[in-house]
Amino acid sequence: MRYIDFVDLNYRPREDDLVCDFRVEPIGISIKEAAGGVAAESSIGTWTELSTMQSYVTDLHATAFMIKKDLVKIAYPIELFENGNMPNILSSVAGNIFGLKALRNLRLEDIHLPRRIVKGFRGPKYGIPGVREILRVPERPLLGTIIKPKLGLRVQDHAVVAYNAWIGGCDIVKDDENLSSQSFNPFEDRVVKTLEMRDRAEEETGERKIYMVNVTAETEEMLRRATFVEEQGGEYVMVDILTCGWSAVQTLRDHDLNLVIHAHRAGHAAFTKNPKHGVAMRVIAKLVRVLGLDQLHIGAVLGKMSERKNEVLENCGALRDEMYGLKPVLPVASGGLHPALVPTLISIFGKDLVVQAGGGIHGHAYGTASGARAMRQALEAAMSNISLREYSRSHVELASALKTWR
Amino acid sequence: MRYIDFVDLNYRPREDDLVCDFRVEPIGISIKEAAGGVAAESSIGTWTELSTMQSYVTDLHATAFMIKKDLVKIAYPIELFENGNMPNILSSVAGNIFGLKALRNLRLEDIHLPRRIVKGFRGPKYGIPGVREILRVPERPLLGTIIKPKLGLRVQDHAVVAYNAWIGGCDIVKDDENLSSQSFNPFEDRVVKTLEMRDRAEEETGERKIYMVNVTAETEEMLRRATFVEEQGGEYVMVDILTCGWSAVQTLRDHDLNLVIHAHRAGHAAFTKNPKHGVAMRVIAKLVRVLGLDQLHIGAVLGKMSERKNEVLENCGALRDEMYGLKPVLPVASGGLHPALVPTLISIFGKDLVVQAGGGIHGHAYGTASGARAMRQALEAAMSNISLREYSRSHVELASALKTWR
Repeated sequence: MRYIDFVDLNYRPREDDLVCDFRVEPIGISIKEAAGGVAAESSIGTWTELSTMQSYVTDLHATAFMIKKDLVKIAYPIELFENGNMPNILSSVAGNIFGLKALRNLRLEDIHLPRRIVKGFRGPKYGIPGVREILRVPERPLLGTIIKPKLGLRVQDHAVVAYNAWIGGCDIVKDDENLSSQSFNPFEDRVVKTLEMRDRAEEETGERKIYMVNVTAETEEMLRRATFVEEQGGEYVMVDILTCGWSAVQTLRDHDLNLVIHAHRAGHAAFTKNPKHGVAMRVIAKLVRVLGLDQLHIGAVLGKMSERKNEVLENCGALRDEMYGLKPVLPVASGGLHPALVPTLISIFGKDLVVQAGGGIHGHAYGTASGARAMRQALEAAMSNISLREYSRSHVELASALKTWR
Repeated sequence: MRYIDFVDLNYRPREDDLVCDFRVEPIGISIKEAAGGVAAESSIGTWTELSTMQSYVTDLHATAFMIKKDLVKIAYPIELFENGNMPNILSSVAGNIFGLKALRNLRLEDIHLPRRIVKGFRGPKYGIPGVREILRVPERPLLGTIIKPKLGLRVQDHAVVAYNAWIGGCDIVKDDENLSSQSFNPFEDRVVKTLEMRDRAEEETGERKIYMVNVTAETEEMLRRATFVEEQGGEYVMVDILTCGWSAVQTLRDHDLNLVIHAHRAGHAAFTKNPKHGVAMRVIAKLVRVLGLDQLHIGAVLGKMSERKNEVLENCGALRDEMYGLKPVLPVASGGLHPALVPTLISIFGKDLVVQAGGGIHGHAYGTASGARAMRQALEAAMSNISLREYSRSHVELASALKTWR
């Protein structure tokens, strides 16, 4: 079969087909041949005719069934994939094809997984309803912070910063994605001391408080750390899903610990940022949901990170829209956020959201607790449809924050 | 500390510093501020001043110490990293920074790991000397093939194609990166039947033969499969390192099975292809070596894949140059190769190489065994400095191949 034989514009995908949407920019060949090439190289074809082809194999070919300008849709028979094996699916549909010389650029824009593939994975154990139940916050956006400075704080100082964030009004305190178990702040000591402060903050505030400790490591060490968190009375872990990788993330979820899993996406923009090439973030978002994590960073539109509003809303949709009965995943907006941005954030995302600020809390002129109060006040104002300016007249922490950041 | 405080052009890296080379393309800020931003966001800084900063933390800051046009070198104190935790290192130096709004493009061009970090990992168990010893081929390039069609062949046909490749002259037969354990070709049955044919091919040819079975899966399933291969008398496994991910790859190596590990890089070009953004392949090559895999695909210059010669040579250097006594990793050239390309390949790579052809063997007019013979003849000719044209006068398989592909 030649590349062009993998194109059939009259083909209509079957219920069980996996469908991918690509943007394709060929070099020196037609878009049709390029579309066929992508379908071939990720199913049963290659660059030359094969003596070893069998008639029973040709039934398994993928089909480029739609071409509109540079947008190509490809349908893959489900038999090409191993049930419940995420790396295998990605090696097929997001593997060698990016490197083809005949393509200047190739971007996997979206992935549509059929029910049978989705049901091969666990899906979220908690998701939005589970997280809200643990926190006993039924409706408002959740307030999170990242301990800052991101690296370097010793355990005791780390725990104190966490405590101050909680008593100021944060629901969730998370480690930075770069913090795992460095000598200045070893994992087990940090877990024990920070959870102690969580208990104290819960007693003092009467609110439920969450500590998300980063278990990013080699797979077995990661599992050992997650189990330790569970034993110590923690309810959450976070993991850097892309630097750990899909096999390990699947392993963590499949162990089915009683832990909410927060997905950090450190490194994603190496392949999501260029709109012409790589993999769109919403693809990652769908895979995270199917595998069964509970929270995911998806960009903030505002702040220091580069994603545009339409991308972030697509990511939200991937996490929250109906998908074969899977629980919705809680989106986390993070990266350069501060109180002045809160009303716009909520107007973009709605209420099912973690508003997560690091510098925008710990950079407050009066310190972390005041910074958390300012953010919580901004949330209250936005939820009550009161302008920040008006609300700040009776809320000094918010007033101070609005002087520092606009 | 502001971004600019992370720049010190008088700084000289210490022996224990980790150093990264970046290409930086800022938007609306100076290259100096952008360089400081990258150093800040991957060490102890963020976008705003922090109330929680401690004087003992500031000693841990990374430093942008060289800026030449768009090339920036950053030194990181070793204390920022957890010993022996690869995902942690990557979340730091190749994490959030790619997504910064202030950077149009950012590319991690190279990574220089200090001895103390390298010694935290196992390094290759076999590497080039170990593979040559197993195969009893002390000098010439090794000949490999991928079973094609890449997906769809049933176990018996898969084993027969492997057998034909071996008796034609292939040293190594590997699964396609997309093949794991699909219903048409389940893993255990494939291992057993293909290793049977390997034994037969070894008896008939008097040569050692290798079957590289793909164990790409969720971590524990991957380990189970690798252990099964060892029990069945296999000597090699292959793994899709990027779709499985670093945690799982480290787990596989750390189990220290008696298996050569072949690294396939499916998906790499999503972030390596654009010369302005992402991560260079030589960074991946160094990490693979430090973690301790034995073989790695690094591009072919010729053929259907896009990498240029200088990139591929850099990848080779990362695998083979002196690196704190680590064994060299065997480079694998693959992707659209056929006999006519062999002399140029060897002139580019030298002899420590797997020349791997799929379509260029199974697409031979007289079938797989003849295709393997033609490739082996091309290797013989190149090693004897005889032109292919001359050699093909007395070697019919080569003559036929040269008619099909130029």
